[in-house]
Amino acid sequence: MEIMQVESSLVCTRRVEGLKAVSMRVLRTASGSRMVAVDTVGVRKGNWVYTVSGSAARYAAGDFGIHTDLTIGGIIDHWPAEQE
Amino acid sequence: MEIMQVESSLVCTRRVEGLKAVSMRVLRTASGSRMVAVDTVGVRKGNWVYTVSGSAARYAAGDFGIHTDLTIGGIIDHWPAEQE
Amino acid sequence: MEIMQVESSLVCTRRVEGLKAVSMRVLRTASGSRMVAVDTVGVRKGNWVYTVSGSAARYAAGDFGIHTDLTIGGIIDHWPAEQE
Amino acid sequence: MEIMQVESSLVCTRRVEGLKAVSMRVLRTASGSRMVAVDTVGVRKGNWVYTVSGSAARYAAGDFGIHTDLTIGGIIDHWPAEQE
Amino acid sequence: MEIMQVESSLVCTRRVEGLKAVSMRVLRTASGSRMVAVDTVGVRKGNWVYTVSGSAARYAAGDFGIHTDLTIGGIIDHWPAEQE
Repeated sequence: MEIMQVESSLVCTRRVEGLKAVSMRVLRTASGSRMVAVDTVGVRKGNWVYTVSGSAARYAAGDFGIHTDLTIGGIIDHWPAEQE
Repeated sequence: MEIMQVESSLVCTRRVEGLKAVSMRVLRTASGSRMVAVDTVGVRKGNWVYTVSGSAARYAAGDFGIHTDLTIGGIIDHWPAEQE
Repeated sequence: MEIMQVESSLVCTRRVEGLKAVSMRVLRTASGSRMVAVDTVGVRKGNWVYTVSGSAARYAAGDFGIHTDLTIGGIIDHWPAEQE
Repeated sequence: MEIMQVESSLVCTRRVEGLKAVSMRVLRTASGSRMVAVDTVGVRKGNWVYTVSGSAARYAAGDFGIHTDLTIGGIIDHWPAEQE
Repeated sequence: MEIMQVESSLVCTRRVEGLKAVSMRVLRTASGSRMVAVDTVGVRKGNWVYTVSGSAARYAAGDFGIHTDLTIGGIIDHWPAEQE
């Protein structure tokens, strides 16, 4: 799982069927690029999270019918990089 | 899901069976490289989209018989990077 | 799908069972690295193609018993990068 | 499988269902970035390990219900890079 | 499939169940990083090989119960890079 930081929510009015009802977040990776992930944990801006990719992302989303390749797996309580 | 921008359509007269009938777009990634994705949403040149990769791309294409590894998941309404 | 250019064929006398009978090509990616892909379309040296990766590569090969992670999906008719 | 070094454990009180009970470690890759992996082997800080990614990570975790995309596959006994 | 060169064998006394009996090799990628792959072909140090990643790696290993994400697919007979 990769470690990323929550940046914002994402507004998308036109989506494919399999992503209709889910909450999505824009995350920033360690290298500074942005990714979009499904959020079922309930994160807030600034949270450090680890993300589940690949087919496991659909399982982690709690519903295999959600066609995601990236899902937030959990919020990291303590994270050294925050102070670096 | 990765964020990309629509650049153009793609003309391919010779394809494998599993990609026969689909509409494909050339997308540009944040790092400037080009990717080819299946489009079922109906995007236009310049749109910012997020893309679904891996096995989820076949599900997101709405038909598991479409043998893609990248499908456009939705059009992003607002995207800060556009103004950067 | 990623865009690559056909460089050459590949001679491999010792292979695993699942790749015994297939035609394989060496492709060059946009960043200059080389990859090996299964070819069922019939490409020629210099052709620009898009490639299907992951589990979709086995489907795109037309036979799930071909144990590939990269298959040529189609030949691109027009490709701006060719003139760049 | 990729080779990484164990850096620390990970404290996450809020997780998705599929990662509830597992032990997780922060690993450092050869390029210096950090990843989070499920540990069923019992590693210690400083150990060199190889990691299993993708859908194989769920199998390697010993329980397909663990929704991980990275699992520690084994501890490397001798590893030249340690002395480099 | 990616092209790599065989560097050495790997000694790992503590492994997960799904990798118990297999022969593993350390390979070097074109960019110089090291990867660990399952070998069922019987390679030697210095051989150029192409590798199968993702779920296809388990199929290519000849036994889906081997929880690998990288398997050597074949030995390349002639490889220009060797002379470069």
